[in-house]
Amino acid sequence: MNILNYETVALDEQAGELVILDQTKLPNEIKFLRLTEQKEIWQAIYLLQVRGAPAIGMAAAFGLYLAAKNIRADTWEEFFPTLHAAKEFLNSSRPTAVNLSWALNRMEAVAVNNKDKSVSEIKELLHKEAVAIKAEDVQMCRQIGEHGLTLIKDGDGILTHCNAGQLATSKYGTALAPIHLGRERGMNFKVFCDETRPLLQGIRLSAFELMADGVDTTVICDNMAAQVMKNGRINAVFVGCDRVAANGDACNKIGTSGLAILAKYYGVPFYVFGPTSTIDMSVERGADIVIEERAAEEVTELWYRQRMAPQGVKVYNPAFDVADHELITAIVTEYGIARPPFHESLKEIFRRKNLR
Amino acid sequence: MNILNYETVALDEQAGELVILDQTKLPNEIKFLRLTEQKEIWQAIYLLQVRGAPAIGMAAAFGLYLAAKNIRADTWEEFFPTLHAAKEFLNSSRPTAVNLSWALNRMEAVAVNNKDKSVSEIKELLHKEAVAIKAEDVQMCRQIGEHGLTLIKDGDGILTHCNAGQLATSKYGTALAPIHLGRERGMNFKVFCDETRPLLQGIRLSAFELMADGVDTTVICDNMAAQVMKNGRINAVFVGCDRVAANGDACNKIGTSGLAILAKYYGVPFYVFGPTSTIDMSVERGADIVIEERAAEEVTELWYRQRMAPQGVKVYNPAFDVADHELITAIVTEYGIARPPFHESLKEIFRRKNLR
Repeated sequence: MNILNYETVALDEQAGELVILDQTKLPNEIKFLRLTEQKEIWQAIYLLQVRGAPAIGMAAAFGLYLAAKNIRADTWEEFFPTLHAAKEFLNSSRPTAVNLSWALNRMEAVAVNNKDKSVSEIKELLHKEAVAIKAEDVQMCRQIGEHGLTLIKDGDGILTHCNAGQLATSKYGTALAPIHLGRERGMNFKVFCDETRPLLQGIRLSAFELMADGVDTTVICDNMAAQVMKNGRINAVFVGCDRVAANGDACNKIGTSGLAILAKYYGVPFYVFGPTSTIDMSVERGADIVIEERAAEEVTELWYRQRMAPQGVKVYNPAFDVADHELITAIVTEYGIARPPFHESLKEIFRRKNLR
Repeated sequence: MNILNYETVALDEQAGELVILDQTKLPNEIKFLRLTEQKEIWQAIYLLQVRGAPAIGMAAAFGLYLAAKNIRADTWEEFFPTLHAAKEFLNSSRPTAVNLSWALNRMEAVAVNNKDKSVSEIKELLHKEAVAIKAEDVQMCRQIGEHGLTLIKDGDGILTHCNAGQLATSKYGTALAPIHLGRERGMNFKVFCDETRPLLQGIRLSAFELMADGVDTTVICDNMAAQVMKNGRINAVFVGCDRVAANGDACNKIGTSGLAILAKYYGVPFYVFGPTSTIDMSVERGADIVIEERAAEEVTELWYRQRMAPQGVKVYNPAFDVADHELITAIVTEYGIARPPFHESLKEIFRRKNLR
């Protein structure tokens, strides 16, 4: 069974269930969750059973549609407050990735813009919108992959962190899209996957999906990145992002900013990959992005198996950090590659987007 | 039971056993190993049941004494080849830390320099030498601590990597010596311990011994170091070393060189701590130091509990890396603090040493 044949996030229309590939069980077990309750969907996002900025957005969109579907109301006035409360609830599951609120806002806007229609019509439009968000994601990732492929050549060594692959999206991924797309065209790359403590997305997820695609994959611990760069084994660093500020500061999985500094030191280009839905032009700079801090046990319990830290020790467990825009070579989106100064080039990306 | 009251490495004279605090079991279990066979001692070093450059040196010295003691020989010609073979065997247990060969060479030299004495007299001298190596270590660590304390002030935030503490030595440690010595004088520091994947010496050992000493201790994953520096929480980075080259390049636990680059980027002083026995003036530069590569399972199996990596994935698992001398603010030894240019200042340290 190839992991690439499964859908990360799907809607089972008939059963009215959100179907999620449980990413906390990979690679040891391939298990699907079938969710209907809002509380369950909130928890699946919070516990990273579904993770990756685009996948979270899709799950939330389907989740809000399921919430809407179950609202018993005949009028807009009865319908909307419940929908809005459901949106706010899902939006509170994780603070950092902007795709979550982006997808939920897009869903809510559909309701607001069609308030004159009947409740059942609005529900149908919400269904359409959630399906569209997912369909667009495939296309978006493919385009990101096309742009990314222009940055590397067959056989290059690529270092990646966390998982910005197919498991984080609908297909292809963002940072891993050029790798998967390259495979379709008979290319191969030597990909080094950082373990990505504390939740091990690199060793569990990226290594898993890359190997399923026949990619030459090597795992390292996070603290070995400098060593592989020094050895000359890395031609480029490819990472995803959870939120990019207007000045190009890129918030992504904890460890990203350190990698960017190491890449700068060793003269390795550092590329950030994300759809435009990840770029938050309303946030001026990275320092203004809320960094989620997560439970101490993620660090002390080693994947919840055995405690390795002394009792009572303090733990600092930020889930993300921000790579300063000065460290970033380029930001790769579905509408092209933005290069410094990002303040200008990101605006240009949005101009292109709005032309379509 | 306070871990600081136990000896990391000791010789049980009566039983003729090397007694080692098993560091692979900490902090969950305090267990001692009683070793007599050379194969057992080799394995204890290889498996990191005893670890830390100075502790390895002490264990090897006691181990070689036990080997000598059990040699049945009446003449130097019968005695020495077996002693030499035992020395070579223990020396092969780990390649990177120079203290291992330093201690073994020192022991062998005692035999060679006294070849005219009777075998039983030589055995007695070897016993004396091993005991002296340990006694000197306490003194050395204390002096390193004194010098290190001049670099920080009460309340400072210190980031440390791996364990260069009491558990790696006889007492006080090297990089952690200023912290423990400061405690004796009523000072306290905010110490951040890197987890130190793959074998978790930071979270298991440093955090454990610092908390036992009442130090304000916070654990972080390795990839969070940039974030705590960026937050302004770190006044200095303190690390140990396994071998320092004549030009100041410092080989230490994997992850050290990356930390040095981050510290440089954030303007945080980066201090390397080690006794002069760790400085190898016969090695010109770090690139000439052999870097041990260890078993893939250390990375893939998460402390040998549960496999987290996909089957068949390649693993790169270097145990050490080299921090370039240009990144090092100072090297702290028992004979004072060496600052750049290290080529000169390290020679001066040895001049001071030879004066005593």
